[in-house]
Amino acid sequence: MNNKVVKINAAIVIIGNEILSGRTQDVNISIISKWLNTLGVRVLEVRVIPDVEERIIETINELRRNFDYVFTTGGIGPTHDDITSESISKAFGLKYEIHKEAFKILENYYKTGEFNEGRQRMTKMPSKAKLILNPTSGAPGFIVENVFCLPGVPSILQSMLSVLKNNIIGGKPILSHTINLRTVESEIAKSLSEVQDKNKDVEIGSYPFFKAGKLGVSIVLRSEDQSKIDDCNSLILKFISKKNIKQINKD
Amino acid sequence: MNNKVVKINAAIVIIGNEILSGRTQDVNISIISKWLNTLGVRVLEVRVIPDVEERIIETINELRRNFDYVFTTGGIGPTHDDITSESISKAFGLKYEIHKEAFKILENYYKTGEFNEGRQRMTKMPSKAKLILNPTSGAPGFIVENVFCLPGVPSILQSMLSVLKNNIIGGKPILSHTINLRTVESEIAKSLSEVQDKNKDVEIGSYPFFKAGKLGVSIVLRSEDQSKIDDCNSLILKFISKKNIKQINKD
Repeated sequence: MNNKVVKINAAIVIIGNEILSGRTQDVNISIISKWLNTLGVRVLEVRVIPDVEERIIETINELRRNFDYVFTTGGIGPTHDDITSESISKAFGLKYEIHKEAFKILENYYKTGEFNEGRQRMTKMPSKAKLILNPTSGAPGFIVENVFCLPGVPSILQSMLSVLKNNIIGGKPILSHTINLRTVESEIAKSLSEVQDKNKDVEIGSYPFFKAGKLGVSIVLRSEDQSKIDDCNSLILKFISKKNIKQINKD
Repeated sequence: MNNKVVKINAAIVIIGNEILSGRTQDVNISIISKWLNTLGVRVLEVRVIPDVEERIIETINELRRNFDYVFTTGGIGPTHDDITSESISKAFGLKYEIHKEAFKILENYYKTGEFNEGRQRMTKMPSKAKLILNPTSGAPGFIVENVFCLPGVPSILQSMLSVLKNNIIGGKPILSHTINLRTVESEIAKSLSEVQDKNKDVEIGSYPFFKAGKLGVSIVLRSEDQSKIDDCNSLILKFISKKNIKQINKD
């Protein structure tokens, strides 16, 4: 048996001036990342870029070559600032044209007379794009090679991820375990560093928290291999016991 | 009088596996962007990258050459996964060493005997770094040339921005006006596009919302020039009146 873990990675591109201006609080990074964890895909980079064609083209062309999967959110609606589909077409050197299947879907979705020019615009995509069906509001997203284009509205995006699962070939799901401690980081820094040195392939993160008067540190262990997480957990429980540090319930 | 508006830009780099894994919901992008708007600095790109030295070095070296300001968050605490200070030193080819002023600050901040190895580690920085004082928890951030390194904990970060204002030379503050409409994007797409075509230097965004049973579209106008925002606003009020579309209170 081959024990080598295949590590599949992804990048996320959030396209939208509203995130860069601070007006809108992004939640899509977290939605997509958590979903990808369950499929065994690690997000290794996120970029937030403006609704500017040149920036979209160069970002997509850089990332699609460096990552297994690229997910974009935003910019596929009917208004003038929705330029993702056309920019992705240019990035791939493909025609930007009406997608017949998408056109049929929206023709059926809207009442007669309501399938207006703006809505028809949402059926223009890179030629040969594969559709991502939209169970919430009709207008599909699309896939070109390893690039998956999704809308920016979180509830719609989330509903589309559920239909997308079979299009992703992932690795082993990424497991995690969190230990919450009543301490400060500097008290555990040295011991934790020793645990990390002995377990290079477990990702060990240390995050201080200040929440409703509670102050502490969350240690997060991440790996595809439960037994490695367990090993680290034991080493950590050993040193906190020696230091007389208590585990606490954070929430 | 010179009417040319100087446009000052910035990039934000969020350093942290916890954001990429989806475990932690980032709020720092929005905090920093809103603060920079008031100083007349536009955020034009955000990157979220892992706690990996090579990735930090190459990202910083790319962005500091392409943007007026670069702000990093995360990775300046006392634990093994806090590698921002050392990575930034390498990016600039500077020594990573104890900063005397920072050392003094923390020596005074902690009680005798509590200024342990982990805490002393937080005083190691790129040589010649300029400190960013921390009114909340002692440990300072730092500035090297146009790169500003801040902590990842939002409440601490926010308190440090307040002392940082005088270090930023911005342009005119970026003004914005929002019009909330009881409509769908496709109804206004064409008219809004015409307003944008006539007002190239106003950033016009269109954002559908679904909130507590209310469905509508927010149109956001952004510019340094209030009169240009007012012009666009008038054109929009004109076409919505013709179309019999109502303004609504979103909240």
